[in-house]
Amino acid sequence: MAQTPAWPPASLTRLFVDQPLSQGMALTIDGGQAHYLGAVMRLKAGDQIALFDDRTGEWRAGIEQVGKRAVAVRIVERMREREAVPDLWLLAAPIKKGRIDWMAEKACELGVARLQPVITQRTIVDRLNLDRLRAHMIEAAEQCERTALPMLDEPVKLAQLLKAWPEDRALIFADEEGGVPMAAAAKPGPAAILIGPEGGFTDGERAAIKALPQATGVSLGPRILRADTAMAAAVSLWMGLAGDWR
Amino acid sequence: MAQTPAWPPASLTRLFVDQPLSQGMALTIDGGQAHYLGAVMRLKAGDQIALFDDRTGEWRAGIEQVGKRAVAVRIVERMREREAVPDLWLLAAPIKKGRIDWMAEKACELGVARLQPVITQRTIVDRLNLDRLRAHMIEAAEQCERTALPMLDEPVKLAQLLKAWPEDRALIFADEEGGVPMAAAAKPGPAAILIGPEGGFTDGERAAIKALPQATGVSLGPRILRADTAMAAAVSLWMGLAGDWR
Repeated sequence: MAQTPAWPPASLTRLFVDQPLSQGMALTIDGGQAHYLGAVMRLKAGDQIALFDDRTGEWRAGIEQVGKRAVAVRIVERMREREAVPDLWLLAAPIKKGRIDWMAEKACELGVARLQPVITQRTIVDRLNLDRLRAHMIEAAEQCERTALPMLDEPVKLAQLLKAWPEDRALIFADEEGGVPMAAAAKPGPAAILIGPEGGFTDGERAAIKALPQATGVSLGPRILRADTAMAAAVSLWMGLAGDWR
Repeated sequence: MAQTPAWPPASLTRLFVDQPLSQGMALTIDGGQAHYLGAVMRLKAGDQIALFDDRTGEWRAGIEQVGKRAVAVRIVERMREREAVPDLWLLAAPIKKGRIDWMAEKACELGVARLQPVITQRTIVDRLNLDRLRAHMIEAAEQCERTALPMLDEPVKLAQLLKAWPEDRALIFADEEGGVPMAAAAKPGPAAILIGPEGGFTDGERAAIKALPQATGVSLGPRILRADTAMAAAVSLWMGLAGDWR
């Protein structure tokens, strides 16, 4: 909800609001966001902020009144249309709390379109708080100036996911047993990166993944990467080779 | 000090010890490492572990006795020589605690040879606990199977660093104002990646960096990355293009 205040402030304070925005619209910002605007950023009536809704884009808004629990704002004008990110999904086995939160944050910043938690045989985290993950992604979107939030789906089992794998979507999986460099796997077009749990995939899972014609195993170098490191590395490489960092 | 127990155990438990190891040598492991071997990993006399010393490589050692506060081991044989990583330095402005710890961990896992903290004009963290950073790097080295620890230096001011910049070392800096893709900047050979603080470089700093003939500004895509995200992205791209992930 609250990005770290930049010093010096390089741009307007940005907030996500979960309702469709339009020109001239008046709205009330409450809860933690109101506290953030008033007490943390010390904004006053007359100041401007940026709002995005994941639907219509990003809007400039003027603050009309700052209260302790509510801030009244009015939309001035649209600054940007909603911008899509490259069509890259991240499929990741849930890992322990701090690291999965970090993964959600980084997935958003790096430009992933969708985060799909995947249950594998060695996944040892059985409960996943999607609301908390979503909050981390919203904060990251506010920070990194995305106007579109990543989609976040309910966890599914790996076998189920593979069974219904879309014909036109490349499945790039980080294979601890070795694979091709990302440069040989990343091509523009619909793709997904699959990161296993800390214990890795089972032999059966690896065989099932490899049986998909859309699948390619990639190597992320000679060191053993933690799941969160592998995720950041693989997404960064893909973005540089096939995404919008080129 | 303690990597997460892998399930199933894929390899020997690995520990860093800060003394030169040799064939047949007897040594005592104490403190948190002894607790880890006995209470966490539940190893017993007769079990084997891997030790590395950042000097002579990685050794197989046999446990001879497990006590509450000390574990007696004897070196059996060398398994690997000390392996160097690519000659990549990471120069990073200190950021707040959790994020700089994470940066040290990821720098080690991703294969950085040296971490040099850099003080810039907008660096707002004035104290840096190098012992804590080093502990995070050791834990990461244990986890990722490095046999050589990254060097970790005392913080230096950016201006001082630029003044004495080695003639043969490329300086790749993440430029929020845009630059070339990493593919145009990363070439095999000595290199450094420079990541600014959350507030970015000042105009004067940017000009001083750009004045170096060894310097190239790179873009990490259209979204605004936090410093820790930029670091993981830039190092991953460099490793894929010019490091040992090819």
